[in-house]
Amino acid sequence: MALKRLSIKTQAKQELIDITERVQRAVRELGVSAGACVIFVPHTTAAITINEHADPSVKEDILMMLDKLVPAGLRYQHAEGNAHAHIRASLLGHSVTVPIEDGKLALGTWQGIFFCECDGPRQREVWITLI
Amino acid sequence: MALKRLSIKTQAKQELIDITERVQRAVRELGVSAGACVIFVPHTTAAITINEHADPSVKEDILMMLDKLVPAGLRYQHAEGNAHAHIRASLLGHSVTVPIEDGKLALGTWQGIFFCECDGPRQREVWITLI
Amino acid sequence: MALKRLSIKTQAKQELIDITERVQRAVRELGVSAGACVIFVPHTTAAITINEHADPSVKEDILMMLDKLVPAGLRYQHAEGNAHAHIRASLLGHSVTVPIEDGKLALGTWQGIFFCECDGPRQREVWITLI
Repeated sequence: MALKRLSIKTQAKQELIDITERVQRAVRELGVSAGACVIFVPHTTAAITINEHADPSVKEDILMMLDKLVPAGLRYQHAEGNAHAHIRASLLGHSVTVPIEDGKLALGTWQGIFFCECDGPRQREVWITLI
Repeated sequence: MALKRLSIKTQAKQELIDITERVQRAVRELGVSAGACVIFVPHTTAAITINEHADPSVKEDILMMLDKLVPAGLRYQHAEGNAHAHIRASLLGHSVTVPIEDGKLALGTWQGIFFCECDGPRQREVWITLI
Repeated sequence: MALKRLSIKTQAKQELIDITERVQRAVRELGVSAGACVIFVPHTTAAITINEHADPSVKEDILMMLDKLVPAGLRYQHAEGNAHAHIRASLLGHSVTVPIEDGKLALGTWQGIFFCECDGPRQREVWITLI
């Protein structure tokens, strides 16, 4: 079972990017009818999460809360100035696992899959494996 | 490998519901002896987590801390009044993956699986896939 | 597919321990060339996360932030004095799923896998399953 790599060019310091359609397409191309799909982020200052993608303001509220919970500019030891991004990534997590049914991602009605850039803009990847 | 859907009727605005026994039963019915089990929540204001189910006060402490970290009633942009529930769900996560051994969930001694209602009461689902 | 159990002796009240090499070795011994690997923590006051392992100060910043977000010594209901450890474990999560390619963990350049002790020192385990 191959690993499929998606490229993502992020545009902002912090943003949530809806990748549901791209993951859906990758699952279709991998051609498996049932099981589950692991969506993995191979970075340490980016993460992945599932949330509502109907109303774009949900993304903004998540970013605002991450800013509030794990502020940039505290007295962190990591000297590169992005310690907050590392911590936010661990709070959100580096993978989500989504069931597959009839060859498609089995997501709930309101669910979308979001790539979470915590220290952009950068060239990023998301890796998809069927299991 | 079929997807198994459990129905959950939540009773409160926020609560953690121990679903370990129901997941265990579903795994037994799916009849697989080894591998792992993905327990997936198809909602955007509910989540799933693993924690101690011997002492019910652990659940209460988790809920108290979520209230403290991500309070309801801040100046969120999402207009439906449940932005805090969306954010809490992303912090806890929408799936857990648990190993299966000898046809049963391989959980630690104190571990239980909890459905986390963040914006109830509602009719909810949990989806179980063996992998 | 067997479940592989690693023993971990933690040394401090709280610490992040890099277990990447040990997981890599376990994957090699399980002898699977492609798929994914679930790394599961069977405890309720310990967790697992992925983050940078080049600079050890990232670990320290994560621990500092957990202390700040979920302090020990608040008025928790759980009477054993480690409610904060239970809550931190749920925020970080009890499993990570990592793709496998060519018989090895497919991790990003800077990624390491960390066992997160939240209430040590103790004798702990990590369970590894290939899927």
